[in-house]
Amino acid sequence: MICMMSVRDELRESLRVQSAMVTTPEVPTSVYRDMFGNMCRRMVAQPGTFSLRNDCTIELSGLPDPVMPWLRPTPLADLPDEVLMYLVGSRYCETDRLSQIAWDMFGHIAPGYAQVQAICDYVHNHIYFNYMNARVTRTAYEAWQEGTGVCRDFAHLAITLCRCMNIPTRYVNGYIPDIGVPITGPMDFCAWMQVYLDGSWHTFDPRNNVPRIGRVEVAYGRDAADVPLIHSFGPHILQKFTVWADEVV
Amino acid sequence: MICMMSVRDELRESLRVQSAMVTTPEVPTSVYRDMFGNMCRRMVAQPGTFSLRNDCTIELSGLPDPVMPWLRPTPLADLPDEVLMYLVGSRYCETDRLSQIAWDMFGHIAPGYAQVQAICDYVHNHIYFNYMNARVTRTAYEAWQEGTGVCRDFAHLAITLCRCMNIPTRYVNGYIPDIGVPITGPMDFCAWMQVYLDGSWHTFDPRNNVPRIGRVEVAYGRDAADVPLIHSFGPHILQKFTVWADEVV
Amino acid sequence: MICMMSVRDELRESLRVQSAMVTTPEVPTSVYRDMFGNMCRRMVAQPGTFSLRNDCTIELSGLPDPVMPWLRPTPLADLPDEVLMYLVGSRYCETDRLSQIAWDMFGHIAPGYAQVQAICDYVHNHIYFNYMNARVTRTAYEAWQEGTGVCRDFAHLAITLCRCMNIPTRYVNGYIPDIGVPITGPMDFCAWMQVYLDGSWHTFDPRNNVPRIGRVEVAYGRDAADVPLIHSFGPHILQKFTVWADEVV
Amino acid sequence: MICMMSVRDELRESLRVQSAMVTTPEVPTSVYRDMFGNMCRRMVAQPGTFSLRNDCTIELSGLPDPVMPWLRPTPLADLPDEVLMYLVGSRYCETDRLSQIAWDMFGHIAPGYAQVQAICDYVHNHIYFNYMNARVTRTAYEAWQEGTGVCRDFAHLAITLCRCMNIPTRYVNGYIPDIGVPITGPMDFCAWMQVYLDGSWHTFDPRNNVPRIGRVEVAYGRDAADVPLIHSFGPHILQKFTVWADEVV
Repeated sequence: MICMMSVRDELRESLRVQSAMVTTPEVPTSVYRDMFGNMCRRMVAQPGTFSLRNDCTIELSGLPDPVMPWLRPTPLADLPDEVLMYLVGSRYCETDRLSQIAWDMFGHIAPGYAQVQAICDYVHNHIYFNYMNARVTRTAYEAWQEGTGVCRDFAHLAITLCRCMNIPTRYVNGYIPDIGVPITGPMDFCAWMQVYLDGSWHTFDPRNNVPRIGRVEVAYGRDAADVPLIHSFGPHILQKFTVWADEVV
Repeated sequence: MICMMSVRDELRESLRVQSAMVTTPEVPTSVYRDMFGNMCRRMVAQPGTFSLRNDCTIELSGLPDPVMPWLRPTPLADLPDEVLMYLVGSRYCETDRLSQIAWDMFGHIAPGYAQVQAICDYVHNHIYFNYMNARVTRTAYEAWQEGTGVCRDFAHLAITLCRCMNIPTRYVNGYIPDIGVPITGPMDFCAWMQVYLDGSWHTFDPRNNVPRIGRVEVAYGRDAADVPLIHSFGPHILQKFTVWADEVV
Repeated sequence: MICMMSVRDELRESLRVQSAMVTTPEVPTSVYRDMFGNMCRRMVAQPGTFSLRNDCTIELSGLPDPVMPWLRPTPLADLPDEVLMYLVGSRYCETDRLSQIAWDMFGHIAPGYAQVQAICDYVHNHIYFNYMNARVTRTAYEAWQEGTGVCRDFAHLAITLCRCMNIPTRYVNGYIPDIGVPITGPMDFCAWMQVYLDGSWHTFDPRNNVPRIGRVEVAYGRDAADVPLIHSFGPHILQKFTVWADEVV
Repeated sequence: MICMMSVRDELRESLRVQSAMVTTPEVPTSVYRDMFGNMCRRMVAQPGTFSLRNDCTIELSGLPDPVMPWLRPTPLADLPDEVLMYLVGSRYCETDRLSQIAWDMFGHIAPGYAQVQAICDYVHNHIYFNYMNARVTRTAYEAWQEGTGVCRDFAHLAITLCRCMNIPTRYVNGYIPDIGVPITGPMDFCAWMQVYLDGSWHTFDPRNNVPRIGRVEVAYGRDAADVPLIHSFGPHILQKFTVWADEVV
């Protein structure tokens, strides 16, 4: 079983308090970094109920996601080699199927921050959020057709549309605390995206579509297939999954 | 434009004669390795007709693909970390959709070489090869339902079924000369697969399903989305594509 | 200025409490991993007094360094490629100069744990520890001739002798708390070594030459040149350097 | 035994004809890339006479090393992380010992191309070339004191002086054909250096100190300790070593 629950190494310096990862029953675990640099934990779980628990306190800036309308796209010929893989299709992002649709809808907007924001606005309004409609096999194209989904579907559709417009875009998952926003229900693991503009990566969140405070990145990849919370190599039932991401004053 | 036409670095020592890569018109090109170690060539092609040409002679063993029925699977817990990504879904390999089907068909066969060969036999017989039926968006699941495709569809379906059985499997493309087999038409770029058994990678080819002599690996990845022959970031028409892979006596 | 003060990523999971790194005056810092995976912090310090401070609590096993006399050397032909660089000479480890001496002294001992321990015993007794005799330019060969030095000299000499006997050996620095041993003066940053036997790395400490509890690895490399505590690209005077590594009950 | 005789992967595309590497007697060999990306060949040679032979034809531009007096140093704070290791000391480059000397001699020259050229001129004149005076243990400091050496000593001294002036500098070895220069004796494997100026690496050759045509890079590293032509883990005598690097018209 492989599990990606710990924050990325970029946040290691911001850890202030951290509990040991506890598995019940206790089993040996090992840790490695995948090719995206995400921290992955491997373990062999015996049949029966198995639980994992971890907790930490992280010190962040307290500022919301920046809004930077002046950002321009990096010319294709100048993109770093390692960024190119975020332009092509992946398991849940069928750029081949959505390319024409993307150009028809967003081809008239000047490339850059505004175009990405237009894509996020579109996706935010086009998909109806409904936990009941989660489905692990749903792709961006299917989410576009069905008009419903959860945060990963918002991310997949916006990622695919951005890639179609030749903007490198990657999938991020992690935690978002309810700081400065109304509490709307139990917390969950969240998915959003980062786009590569003007030489660096910038956060966009088509699900919430407003700047948020205190995002904690756990893993990134090309889409959800790269960064499963849990990947088991045998049948398993997720009995319960609780997330808490609270402000420490 | 990115192009993957050159052999992998593992074959560099086997090169005996190599022409310069010629582009018409001539444009500057740069070379990088992607995260799989494939050699990728970047260039900016101007509008209009653009051609690429390359030729080389490689010295290989002359032996056909080995048949090794004694190979056992590597236990999941012992798989090297970097192999794990070849167990999960990817753009054209929907392990989530084919998992139940795979276990129903191949779950009764002892894991190892024989099981992989059974998957190849099944795919070889289930898909009807037809160049007319090529479609770049076709996934393994669609190929399984439609029962038709080209070599990449054979590979994608067999890869997906192997991954469902917890056998790490990767997509390979390259050249296969007509050595020791009847000539069956114009040559093409080919796709096959490698599975990880007993601690190393082994070649299987569900399209041809017989050992072949002289395979030349160009690139590998999780599926065809990782290793496009040509990836252009604008509309292009592939006017002509000629492959020659001949024995030099 | 580059500074290596933070624990290695392998210990990230063991962090329980961690303060923010504080520089006085405050300057922007960035973090990267060098080619050994050590965490390095870069910053531009202005002329004048500049201080750095950090503190953390780490949960470790509480067990002393293991003693494993049954360990055998890995045959040269079976050493992993990435281990080979720890067999050759480096800035402070002149294998070329000490090779004959090493074989004369240790060539009669069966390769493996006992041989490494014999080297540590020799170095422990041959070098007289004296803080007054620290010199950043001292090499293993010079330490051997002068018979005096600090912990890094013990490590360099033992590393060089081990490499001469074809045992891959790397330099480690970090913190060693005074757990279970008499307190012998102010604490310091320490240097020890790891040797590659039977397929993995094992700790030896020719300076202390007894198993210790609670070692905290900060960085490793081929010798002290790879892992400076502080590397400045202009003149600087180290006015004060205080280390605390205490047991938290 | 490890051997670095093949050209770097950056030149792979320029190979036009290449023989197979022949060992006599024939032994299995494997190939890996070290942490600098150099291609290394591993093999186990039996006692007795052992020979290695390889030949290739490479197509290069035919232009001499460029002279670019306008090049400026990259500010320290802007150096890429992976370049920083070429600023510190290494086995044969004692920056700690030569720092004061370097600043006294070259501190008054404006940083950049002219300063590096002044260092090369100094080294070219200070060291008397003499094959009879080769010694594998000679360091830059010793070469400076003794005033004699071979091409690797020229490179080590100039590299050390450049690093002392905060210019990242690496050691290169490879082949230099006698194109456009008088033939001065049997050819040899050569050593030169590359300095990092204005964001990329540039060739300087303190031994020859004139632009040359047709350099073929085999390996680079921090100094000769990183890139031995042959590294054996047991006694060996180099009976004969012949290099040919000729122009193919």
